[in-house]
Amino acid sequence: MSETPQNHPASASERVVPDADLRSIDAWWRAANYLSVGQIYLLDDPLLRRPLVPEDVKPRLLGHWGTTPGLNFLYAHLNRVIRDRALSSIFVTGPGHGGPGMVANTYLDGTYSEVYPRITRDEDGVRALFRQFSFPGGIPSHVAPETPGSIHEGGELGYSLSHAFGAAFDNPELVVTCVVGDGEAETGPAATGWHSNKFLDPVQDGTVLPILHLNGYKIANPTVLARIPERRLVELFRGYGYTPYVFTAGFDGEDPISIHRRFSALLESVFDEIARIRADARAGRYHSDDPVTATPEWPMIILRTPKGWTGPHEVDGVLVEGTYRAHQVPLASARDTPEHLRILEEWMRRYRPEELFDDAGAPSASIDRLAPQGELRMSANPVANGGLLRTPLSLPDFRDFAVDVPSPGATTAEATRVLGTWLAEVIRRNPSTFRIFGPDETASNRLAPPVYEATQKQWAAAILPTDDHLARVGRVMEMLSEHQCQGWLEGYLLTGRHGLFTCYEAFIHIVDSMFNQHAKWLKVTRRIPWRRPISSLNYLLTSHVWRQDHNGFSHQDPGFIDHVVNKSAEVVRVYLPFDANTLLSTYDHCLRSVDYVNVVVAGKQPAANWLTMDEAVDHCTRGLGILEWAGTEMTGQDPDVVLAAAGDIPTLEVLAAAQILREALPDLRVRVVNVVDLMRLQSESEHPHGLPDREFDAIFTVDRPVVFAYHGYPWLIHRLAYKRHGHDNLHVRGYKENGTTTTPFDMVMLNHLDRYQLAIDAIDRVPGLAQRCAGLRQELQDARLRARAYTREHGEDIPEVADWSWSGAR
Amino acid sequence: MSETPQNHPASASERVVPDADLRSIDAWWRAANYLSVGQIYLLDDPLLRRPLVPEDVKPRLLGHWGTTPGLNFLYAHLNRVIRDRALSSIFVTGPGHGGPGMVANTYLDGTYSEVYPRITRDEDGVRALFRQFSFPGGIPSHVAPETPGSIHEGGELGYSLSHAFGAAFDNPELVVTCVVGDGEAETGPAATGWHSNKFLDPVQDGTVLPILHLNGYKIANPTVLARIPERRLVELFRGYGYTPYVFTAGFDGEDPISIHRRFSALLESVFDEIARIRADARAGRYHSDDPVTATPEWPMIILRTPKGWTGPHEVDGVLVEGTYRAHQVPLASARDTPEHLRILEEWMRRYRPEELFDDAGAPSASIDRLAPQGELRMSANPVANGGLLRTPLSLPDFRDFAVDVPSPGATTAEATRVLGTWLAEVIRRNPSTFRIFGPDETASNRLAPPVYEATQKQWAAAILPTDDHLARVGRVMEMLSEHQCQGWLEGYLLTGRHGLFTCYEAFIHIVDSMFNQHAKWLKVTRRIPWRRPISSLNYLLTSHVWRQDHNGFSHQDPGFIDHVVNKSAEVVRVYLPFDANTLLSTYDHCLRSVDYVNVVVAGKQPAANWLTMDEAVDHCTRGLGILEWAGTEMTGQDPDVVLAAAGDIPTLEVLAAAQILREALPDLRVRVVNVVDLMRLQSESEHPHGLPDREFDAIFTVDRPVVFAYHGYPWLIHRLAYKRHGHDNLHVRGYKENGTTTTPFDMVMLNHLDRYQLAIDAIDRVPGLAQRCAGLRQELQDARLRARAYTREHGEDIPEVADWSWSGAR
Repeated sequence: MSETPQNHPASASERVVPDADLRSIDAWWRAANYLSVGQIYLLDDPLLRRPLVPEDVKPRLLGHWGTTPGLNFLYAHLNRVIRDRALSSIFVTGPGHGGPGMVANTYLDGTYSEVYPRITRDEDGVRALFRQFSFPGGIPSHVAPETPGSIHEGGELGYSLSHAFGAAFDNPELVVTCVVGDGEAETGPAATGWHSNKFLDPVQDGTVLPILHLNGYKIANPTVLARIPERRLVELFRGYGYTPYVFTAGFDGEDPISIHRRFSALLESVFDEIARIRADARAGRYHSDDPVTATPEWPMIILRTPKGWTGPHEVDGVLVEGTYRAHQVPLASARDTPEHLRILEEWMRRYRPEELFDDAGAPSASIDRLAPQGELRMSANPVANGGLLRTPLSLPDFRDFAVDVPSPGATTAEATRVLGTWLAEVIRRNPSTFRIFGPDETASNRLAPPVYEATQKQWAAAILPTDDHLARVGRVMEMLSEHQCQGWLEGYLLTGRHGLFTCYEAFIHIVDSMFNQHAKWLKVTRRIPWRRPISSLNYLLTSHVWRQDHNGFSHQDPGFIDHVVNKSAEVVRVYLPFDANTLLSTYDHCLRSVDYVNVVVAGKQPAANWLTMDEAVDHCTRGLGILEWAGTEMTGQDPDVVLAAAGDIPTLEVLAAAQILREALPDLRVRVVNVVDLMRLQSESEHPHGLPDREFDAIFTVDRPVVFAYHGYPWLIHRLAYKRHGHDNLHVRGYKENGTTTTPFDMVMLNHLDRYQLAIDAIDRVPGLAQRCAGLRQELQDARLRARAYTREHGEDIPEVADWSWSGAR
Repeated sequence: MSETPQNHPASASERVVPDADLRSIDAWWRAANYLSVGQIYLLDDPLLRRPLVPEDVKPRLLGHWGTTPGLNFLYAHLNRVIRDRALSSIFVTGPGHGGPGMVANTYLDGTYSEVYPRITRDEDGVRALFRQFSFPGGIPSHVAPETPGSIHEGGELGYSLSHAFGAAFDNPELVVTCVVGDGEAETGPAATGWHSNKFLDPVQDGTVLPILHLNGYKIANPTVLARIPERRLVELFRGYGYTPYVFTAGFDGEDPISIHRRFSALLESVFDEIARIRADARAGRYHSDDPVTATPEWPMIILRTPKGWTGPHEVDGVLVEGTYRAHQVPLASARDTPEHLRILEEWMRRYRPEELFDDAGAPSASIDRLAPQGELRMSANPVANGGLLRTPLSLPDFRDFAVDVPSPGATTAEATRVLGTWLAEVIRRNPSTFRIFGPDETASNRLAPPVYEATQKQWAAAILPTDDHLARVGRVMEMLSEHQCQGWLEGYLLTGRHGLFTCYEAFIHIVDSMFNQHAKWLKVTRRIPWRRPISSLNYLLTSHVWRQDHNGFSHQDPGFIDHVVNKSAEVVRVYLPFDANTLLSTYDHCLRSVDYVNVVVAGKQPAANWLTMDEAVDHCTRGLGILEWAGTEMTGQDPDVVLAAAGDIPTLEVLAAAQILREALPDLRVRVVNVVDLMRLQSESEHPHGLPDREFDAIFTVDRPVVFAYHGYPWLIHRLAYKRHGHDNLHVRGYKENGTTTTPFDMVMLNHLDRYQLAIDAIDRVPGLAQRCAGLRQELQDARLRARAYTREHGEDIPEVADWSWSGAR
């Protein structure tokens, strides 16, 4: 690269970091690097008390060296800053595959041995530390839930910034250092994650210090940002609204102490600047009415170093340090090739372990003096083990927000709007621990207007007088990026707070992969005693498949549920409340729960209310139940047919079908069942919510036909119920990937989920009935065709559907 | 905003656009706006030949106005440029919900009536055009497959740039104009999509002209990029490597002709600049060895206009034009409120329809003269109906690349590497119509080294002498963004070319949502006669769940298959070839197919070869089959138990289990079945590949226990086979979300998919067998425990597993 790097800020800090500190930083860095290499390679001789022999080396060499020395460098320097300034800080490791580094640092500062007493601070402990890494029965190779101080797995690249900002919201004293690898920087979520600064309030929220680590390479390629002109790189981050500082080291043989002196001076400046911005903000110097001064231009650092810095420069005649070849394990056959073993030993001895560990094998005093104390250690900061800080929400009684239901279907409501009235009160009672995240859909999903009576949308860029509900601080976070919503919320929950993500149902698939990682995180943390439970991740999916009136086919996908149920049953819950009161009852439950992912799918359109609040609570507590008022049950007798539903639109159609059947065939015993908690359908053995077989059979029968109208893809019901006795009698209707921009009733007709079809299905499945009432069956077929013709002619639902209301008694 | 906009490039073009053209542009713009409003609102009186009455207005008003006038403005101006320069150009509409605009433009240029003769170019045609929009039986509200000239649905926001660049690759004469909405610009895929310029070769590829349309608002919020200081906005796009031009209009009452004059002058400059860059590139003036001059700094335009430009300024006392309230339908009750009806009519008359349409209702001559001719119309460019241009690949005979298999398991290979040798030859034979896309994983997934003997990785940024396989042009596209890989490939396929996307299995979930949209696109296009078939979208998923040796739990997720099978059966195919020859045969089939999404999951690690090429072809043609050499069949007799497998690791374990059983229980009749084409398990009625019941029963029996070892989540097999006669006898093992960084055999043990467990499962399910051979069963249990203990002690697989090889005869 031919350009002159901008290597430090214009005005260097006055504060001079003493040489003793620089030497401690260097010792820490060498020790962390040493321990990282040891984890990747060694089974024995952990402190090189004798020459290495092949048997000291692990038979399978697994892990990622390339990113690790840069992470260790930063961790060492941040320790010094935290110690000197008594900062509360956590470290988010975007290049999370640099797991050995984070383990090494948390071992050096003592936290690792505190949470894993087996890993002692002596030679045996170092041996155990090395052995367990990427070893069966040991620890994963990444920065994982097992790693103290981590809130970010780092296996999937992309959203470290989103996690970091989520952690910073409502944590005014916190500084989150977030390392973004230059590989990760190419991902979409990272590329938009930089814009989080337009959503962070410099008074009520904390600070994120992003550090882009340009080590130049990914697995097998250079990185984009390492190969563009440096002036463009700087413009890019100025464009993102930061003040970037480029720091380059490791390419020219500069003495490490000199590098440390330069970098610690830079950090002093940067942390001074952070303090100045925060003071300016408290003094009211950022003005929303002026785009130029609305958003603080926080500092960020671009750290350019070789990949695999300090590692083997060349192996087998090819360059390793400073190339992509340093990504994983630079010496692939250290156990089997004497030359590799020699290079390994030479490499590790270059860190001078004899200076770093005392005779017993504990870290030296020079290292110890660098570590912050107690909870100021980044690895021990309770923010990174959010369950320690979490307090339950103060929840208003949701019963007070009930809609009045004098009889089933007698009143109507927009369910999510009703939920919004309750959420507004949740916000009032929890002014700094609860947030709602959404990709510009809070209003469209009709939590607004109610929630905007209690709060605003937080927005740290310019605000115009014509804007509605935008403010410097607020509980609603809206950015048109599902990745950001998910990442922010995860960061917020992982640090001990509460929230929900409201999203169009179809587009929640954008974060399928992020959901996967969070569900995996929760599963693992349940087995880590020192990780305390965190609030559940709550989804509110609306604007769902059946009511995409404006948008049509591209917006129709109910498959997130299918995706979710693949994850560990102890972690996932799926609810389909079918009216306003069941939604209130469901969400109250969700906001109280911990360590789950709760998926709630609900309607936003005006729709009938079916259950009183008492009934709703009862129904939701059981998770499913018979709607006795809707069927034609005879006490003590099994029904002839069961009409079951899950979801608001399917329930509506089932109720209408039941009414058709009751009026036309009063002697037919029809049972109507609604399922709110989808996991009740699974066996007890497969899911903790699974209904015992006896109870399941009592509701669905073991031998009567069950016509099941389901909100989503029909086969999921088969999958959930396949171990049930009556599953051969189960006939499921659902979304069959048929749709366009059309009327709501045309949508259910296109997918054979409409009332006429359901009534026909019931008739066809009760033995002998189709023959006995062929005329009725034909009438229902005709009604379907008439409905279709009408809707195509008039562009609206047929009056008898649009105006249908329940005429049964409770 | 208080800043001075940079309203035009420094050096304006010499060319002056004649006033007659400016008037035509204005007429076109007004006509397109008029037709857009008409589509949203009107049932009748399409040309306002009389005053509007309520019955002229649709009962349900659906659609999106806000973005539409800006799109129409651009379309009109581009027509002029294309006509004057005889450019080949297509238009990618990021804000694809502006569907009425694109329909209007393609109606004005005549294409719409050519492909839909029912929509004539007269008053009746305009009426039909209006009526069908967002109407049952009509067309969707978005820019959809039904829209001529579209390759981008636009329902899901985020990857218009990826599509645009994908279209431009290997289309040197093409200019793709890509409008990115400022809402879309907040998404992750868009934020990284700008970096596509580092992957485009200015000689062999075409040009993308991005236009960021800053209309300032999303659904209910301002946009981030509209509210940052303009100098930062400009820096951002300079940082992305473009030369940005800001053009502002519509805020100050400027005369439309003046606006058109300014914008057409800007376009002249921009297209001159594009021509200059292309000429410079052909003259070799971009140098990979210099980061400053490696990448052309292509022009891009930032168009700042009011949202809902030219629409109602104020409705019901609140501002609409220039606010988020213009997003969908500005007049919500035009049918029911006289005041709204009045505003609607006034709004439409402001476009002066009497000047725009002749007496018959056809577009006026002033409009006609603006349209490019024939295939130069953006709506009729065959590039946007890629099937018209597609020619089948020239495929080398995959049989020539077969691995030698003297007997089952006698040789080993890395399946993907073998595939790579064939793909290298595919690349040689198809030097400009085939590309491989991957997120920095082509080498890791072991298509390399072979493919790099035939090609390079295309890279338009700086290249260092130490780099491997990077070049200005090449057939492999690697960026660490699954979104970009998917989007580029889709754009490439939609414009008539071929390719594949190779990805780690777990992280393909990152594009779940994009896959959804593409599958929906394919489903719809199958019903549009003028859309010609395009090449299938081929995934190669490897580095799969069972062999995440380096990465562990975060990298383990085989659920993409579950996600895929929710989409229309006519579109999706899933293959699990279990060795090198079956992978070759499968992929040959995939690269020949059209209009599918083919998901292929295959191993990359050294593994046994099981089938000769002849056997592989036969097996893959059937999609599944009995491996007679592996079982202990007796001719004419049903087996006692069926061991079935899908996937390489499950097949290995099933074969080993079969060997254990054969040796221990030589009289037990064991059948071994392998499934390559997963869709064969479904009924004929559910999937075109579904095996007829009789054939299914002949293989799996109707009453014998089937122990099925499956690559992914086990319940999928139940779901696919639930209608089969023997499904109650099906016992499936698969990935149960148990994993970490551990040995390969520990992984199968953790999930009970190991050979010992499968043998035990078989014993437990054959009636009476468990009692008869309790000792053997205990031995197998002990072997499992020994294996676990060994792997935890030694960190590697037990020798009898690691060294296991098939000892049966063929």
